[in-house]
Amino acid sequence: MDKPEILMSPGPTPVPPEVLLAQAQPLVYHRGPGYGALLREVTEGLQQIMKTSNDVLVFASSGTGGLESVVANLLSPSDRVVVPVAGYFGERFAKIAVAYGADVRTIDYAWGQAVRTDDVKAALDEAPAKAVFMQQSETSTGVIHDVEAVAAVVKEAGVLLAVDAVSSLGAVPYDGDGWGVDVTVGGSQKAFSATPGLAFVSVSPAAWEATKTATNPRFYFDWAAYKASYDLKNPENPFTPAISLMLGMRVALRRYLDEGVDNVLARHRILSAATKEGVRALGLDLFGEGREKAWAVTAVRAPEGIDGNELVAKVRADHSIILAPGQGPLKGKVFRIGHLGYYDRFDIIRCLAALELTLHSMGYPVKPGSGVAAAEQVFAARPAASADPTVR
Amino acid sequence: MDKPEILMSPGPTPVPPEVLLAQAQPLVYHRGPGYGALLREVTEGLQQIMKTSNDVLVFASSGTGGLESVVANLLSPSDRVVVPVAGYFGERFAKIAVAYGADVRTIDYAWGQAVRTDDVKAALDEAPAKAVFMQQSETSTGVIHDVEAVAAVVKEAGVLLAVDAVSSLGAVPYDGDGWGVDVTVGGSQKAFSATPGLAFVSVSPAAWEATKTATNPRFYFDWAAYKASYDLKNPENPFTPAISLMLGMRVALRRYLDEGVDNVLARHRILSAATKEGVRALGLDLFGEGREKAWAVTAVRAPEGIDGNELVAKVRADHSIILAPGQGPLKGKVFRIGHLGYYDRFDIIRCLAALELTLHSMGYPVKPGSGVAAAEQVFAARPAASADPTVR
Repeated sequence: MDKPEILMSPGPTPVPPEVLLAQAQPLVYHRGPGYGALLREVTEGLQQIMKTSNDVLVFASSGTGGLESVVANLLSPSDRVVVPVAGYFGERFAKIAVAYGADVRTIDYAWGQAVRTDDVKAALDEAPAKAVFMQQSETSTGVIHDVEAVAAVVKEAGVLLAVDAVSSLGAVPYDGDGWGVDVTVGGSQKAFSATPGLAFVSVSPAAWEATKTATNPRFYFDWAAYKASYDLKNPENPFTPAISLMLGMRVALRRYLDEGVDNVLARHRILSAATKEGVRALGLDLFGEGREKAWAVTAVRAPEGIDGNELVAKVRADHSIILAPGQGPLKGKVFRIGHLGYYDRFDIIRCLAALELTLHSMGYPVKPGSGVAAAEQVFAARPAASADPTVR
Repeated sequence: MDKPEILMSPGPTPVPPEVLLAQAQPLVYHRGPGYGALLREVTEGLQQIMKTSNDVLVFASSGTGGLESVVANLLSPSDRVVVPVAGYFGERFAKIAVAYGADVRTIDYAWGQAVRTDDVKAALDEAPAKAVFMQQSETSTGVIHDVEAVAAVVKEAGVLLAVDAVSSLGAVPYDGDGWGVDVTVGGSQKAFSATPGLAFVSVSPAAWEATKTATNPRFYFDWAAYKASYDLKNPENPFTPAISLMLGMRVALRRYLDEGVDNVLARHRILSAATKEGVRALGLDLFGEGREKAWAVTAVRAPEGIDGNELVAKVRADHSIILAPGQGPLKGKVFRIGHLGYYDRFDIIRCLAALELTLHSMGYPVKPGSGVAAAEQVFAARPAASADPTVR
């Protein structure tokens, strides 16, 4: 039977039919009241979820474009930046800064570790820095770094903090202004359950101030141009926007806010717990520090004698479910289950069942249904189903 | 009655329902055979329309991102580039090069003039240059520059030629390899009739060679990363692509190639002629050099005593038809009618009728139906309707 593959990777994530259908609407012309209202609604929705009153800019690009905009707008060549690297996306942020000639002071962790505040403080004490660039969710390991704690240290040093929250925003608690984050980068294709192609960047007054002296070249990602266009009577983008994706994003945000920020976060917390209990019940080990906070992605060690990449390939080939393999030093050793976005409890149960079947077929001893049973116990322990956000 | 506004601006252009509906399909995961086949089909379709066997790279960005990629990948700071400027988009290409610290030798024309080959030759003779950047269609004036003639001069000087063909590719004849163009930049939302958010860049072997020594910073728009990902067994993009827009683009290209390149070009030629005859019959003057070649956009002088911007605003307010106003020095003096993409003869007739009604309401003497009649005469002079590409 021909059914679409099921996304259980940490992005792109499944997209509700209402969002997909919104992308099939006739185009709204990108100059005028129609698009102005669309851009304003998307911007204000993002401010609400980022918990910020700072400007939020919308780019037609993937999340990486949003990260590059941070380097291009905040820095001049040879500016010193501190970049904790505890996985693939920490490496990426550092690489972008290197590409622009920054003096990049990485703090190197084994993949799977969480960023330690003391290390950031020590790196800032060594020499003056312009900014700290970090992830909230290090997608490659599933680890959630403690942005609040790092922000406190960074603010005390009078340095800018930019957070790559692409794979966490909307899935785990975030408080942009409360924590004092200067720049938050998000993307459409993660917890928001819209399709890929939009990046979002919030910019604090201190970050705006820094752009005035930053000499790195920029044009398509020039924040000031986006701000000037947004401030028109009918807000615009300086360059033709991805109108269809914006139409989808509006519906995705309405759904998100209708469900309610707290409910969405609770749903992610419960689905994450069920996934982790299910995996543990199969005798597998979770990977990475601070698992109880990893509501976006569950990283799992491949069992002895089974290659994680082969496991992921076989789950896809046999069951049309797309998990994510380990990257870099974790290749073959780890696999990842994404549960951020448009998921309910039965998506998790289906995924665990597929994992049981595949592990069994690869010769790993599995008691059929044991992972599913453990997940069900998490759900059964919840109060009345009517009050449980993991129930449709 | 609530009907969507009608796009007669030079982009975004109307999108066929089949393309819009393709954007509502479930996402194809961006790593694997499904997306690989999608990316390959889009790439090969673009090669066919650009008439090139060079690599074609696809970016999730608007056309301006594609232009910036040219500057970032080909140049080092203080490299000399020659940029003919005969309108808004010539200015833009020059501005991007300036933003990256290039030594930009503009050739300044009055808006509405066409680039002269002798001027390019003279600018190249003055001092060695790395590249020439030009438009094929200068969207702000409707003028089509003679890429073939300029290319001959540029090639003789042993210099790279990059062409911004965003608003012409697919609407006017183009022969990338035949003319010896090194880099062609296109966009999804013009003659292809897909929605905005994708940029396309072809790269010749000589351009690849230049990237090896070009030191401008680049990451999101780094051509080499896109090439490496495309060359995988299942072609990919290095960063999560705008999957929904790619699904739409595939359908748009299939429609384009089913209609046939020559038929599409003939359709644009005839619709352009009908538009121009209709406008002339209303006593209005066309704007810009080489009108018979301006198959993408018709620029019209606003008549004495009527402000072009007001005219455009009134056509939109009264008739929900979106024309484009004059930009820069042409503000208020010129208005523009886009006829590139998903248009047939009755789209032109409707637009001319709206123009007649609006001019009349603004006190300009109009003989009702005279513009429409002139357009009909162009269509009536065609051979059997069954062989006319402007008939559905």
